[in-house]
Amino acid sequence: MTMPALKNDRFLRALLRQPVDQTPIWIMRQAGRYLPEYRETRARAGSFMDLCKNADLACEVTLQPLERYELDAAILFSDILTIPDAMGLGLRFVQGEGPVFDKPVRSAADVAAIGIPDPEGELQYVMNAVRTIRVALDGRVPLIGFSGSPWTLATYMVEGGSTKDFAKIKGMMYAEPALLHQLLEKVADAVVLYLNAQIAAGVQAVQIFDTWGGVLSPDKYREFSLQYMNRIVAGLNRESEGRKVPVILFTKGGGAWAEDIAASGCDAIGLDWTADIGAIRRKVGDKVALQGNLDPSVLYGSPEIIEAEVAKVLASYGVGSGHVFNLGHGIHQHVDPHNVKVLVDAVHKLSRPYHAQFEY
Amino acid sequence: MTMPALKNDRFLRALLRQPVDQTPIWIMRQAGRYLPEYRETRARAGSFMDLCKNADLACEVTLQPLERYELDAAILFSDILTIPDAMGLGLRFVQGEGPVFDKPVRSAADVAAIGIPDPEGELQYVMNAVRTIRVALDGRVPLIGFSGSPWTLATYMVEGGSTKDFAKIKGMMYAEPALLHQLLEKVADAVVLYLNAQIAAGVQAVQIFDTWGGVLSPDKYREFSLQYMNRIVAGLNRESEGRKVPVILFTKGGGAWAEDIAASGCDAIGLDWTADIGAIRRKVGDKVALQGNLDPSVLYGSPEIIEAEVAKVLASYGVGSGHVFNLGHGIHQHVDPHNVKVLVDAVHKLSRPYHAQFEY
Repeated sequence: MTMPALKNDRFLRALLRQPVDQTPIWIMRQAGRYLPEYRETRARAGSFMDLCKNADLACEVTLQPLERYELDAAILFSDILTIPDAMGLGLRFVQGEGPVFDKPVRSAADVAAIGIPDPEGELQYVMNAVRTIRVALDGRVPLIGFSGSPWTLATYMVEGGSTKDFAKIKGMMYAEPALLHQLLEKVADAVVLYLNAQIAAGVQAVQIFDTWGGVLSPDKYREFSLQYMNRIVAGLNRESEGRKVPVILFTKGGGAWAEDIAASGCDAIGLDWTADIGAIRRKVGDKVALQGNLDPSVLYGSPEIIEAEVAKVLASYGVGSGHVFNLGHGIHQHVDPHNVKVLVDAVHKLSRPYHAQFEY
Repeated sequence: MTMPALKNDRFLRALLRQPVDQTPIWIMRQAGRYLPEYRETRARAGSFMDLCKNADLACEVTLQPLERYELDAAILFSDILTIPDAMGLGLRFVQGEGPVFDKPVRSAADVAAIGIPDPEGELQYVMNAVRTIRVALDGRVPLIGFSGSPWTLATYMVEGGSTKDFAKIKGMMYAEPALLHQLLEKVADAVVLYLNAQIAAGVQAVQIFDTWGGVLSPDKYREFSLQYMNRIVAGLNRESEGRKVPVILFTKGGGAWAEDIAASGCDAIGLDWTADIGAIRRKVGDKVALQGNLDPSVLYGSPEIIEAEVAKVLASYGVGSGHVFNLGHGIHQHVDPHNVKVLVDAVHKLSRPYHAQFEY
């Protein structure tokens, strides 16, 4: 099947630090609870995982924010916990508590029992969603695929859910590091298969969400998180449909480690809002693009405040390509959807002077 | 009243980067739930705030860890929320949820209604605890006093309790920055009075806990958190009983801003475990001492692991004075008390070679 030509490739070009006319923007969790139409579809779908597993509904919510805003990319509607769910750990979402695994991974026997899910088997619903979305997108903007990082997925698998102090997985890290490495290897193998299958199914860029890498000390981050993201980057099919498939690594709280992350071979680093994007560009901007990094809470401000804060991030990054605008973390559910339009339009309008030298 | 001479001043000397024989150590939340004797006293006291408000029992728990371990400092047993409690916001501790304020601060009228508590009035119980502890310590080690930072206290006051996304205070920060500044000014004034009263009552060093400064972007951190800590540092009586009273600023997640924090005029910066203490010493070690920064989860490891991780932190800091060993955050409640002895003894034993040039 031949895919329709891409009408807006600003996002892919910026990730490869090729010239663009204006800074592209997408928003982490752009298809989400802040949109009334999302809440309506979600209510129809049943549970959150029911929504993820229904290709038509996942496609519907993926496209919803594109109908409202001039976003430069779509992101597959799914969850980072699809892999541990497919591993049979018994995922449930508990109101007010978040994800819970009935069969957490704690012992050597638990780790040994884990199988690598078949992306076109237990996880075929994800690939079906990708295929459905690509057809529906009709080349409007590129589609982003994603996965959790091995460390981040392992935190949920070992803790059995969300945690504040990461006592169980860090207990394993300090008391049984070899066991944790075995687990991380398996998860990394699963992620490589999963992302390559997403690429084969049609995603045009991938992001690895290392939501919890930032809770580690620098040396443990390199050993238990970054090392496995490096392996994934090395194992991905980086070309599809005649174009490079860029890889974005996002470690929340990882701004201080940008030089290590850039050395992974990724194309771009996602930054949260505690990072100084200008200072990081001066360190690694000749190696990778940068994505981010507005504080999601700025969207509680007035249009004037939002524009002023957007202007600061753009000025901090400075002139030229290599910047994909985003929030520093997922959009909050209580944000006024109108403010998102203010944000997207401000990024496009205010970024043009920084690309004045633009020529294809 | 004349205070007894100090028998162990390693902690105070290290904070002022004066020579020491071995690296001093204390542990954030060293008087806490991981100790069975603490749990016993706590049960006798009634509520957590009842324990804080009873000078004899607060003294008892302050001294408990000193009976077990060769710690180089005691820290006043209290809570950072004493100030908002004394402001009349209706503090309660709810099982599984943490602190709750019945009267959160949200409007201009709420901010205007806040009074500055009298340290020898509503907060006299804290000063009584300081005086009682100083007598009981009998000069064994110095006593640390503390306060929350204005930003950190304001997060609780505005949110009305704990929060994950800081939506309400950041909403105020972006939508009504002038109002938040008014609140922070009042809290900063209260903190100056409070810490100066603690110093007058007998504390020999003070730490400001900026637990939530790290959730801000770099420019907002400087404007809404660091600015007010600077004011406090400038307003403190830095000498007492013929000695300098060192000031430690601890911003969790603030490692990237060490140069800004060092410029505050503080004597030491507290670091969490995500910071590279050696790299930060190279940046600011000629201006301030550094405190930290072992991951509290290391205490889930074996004695061998604990010693190895202690050795790494000591080696990262390197030769000479100016380092106070600590965890990067409060000790977890499920830690085995025996492992704390391993930690304290390892710091003393393994640090001696780094102070081989030591002479008084």
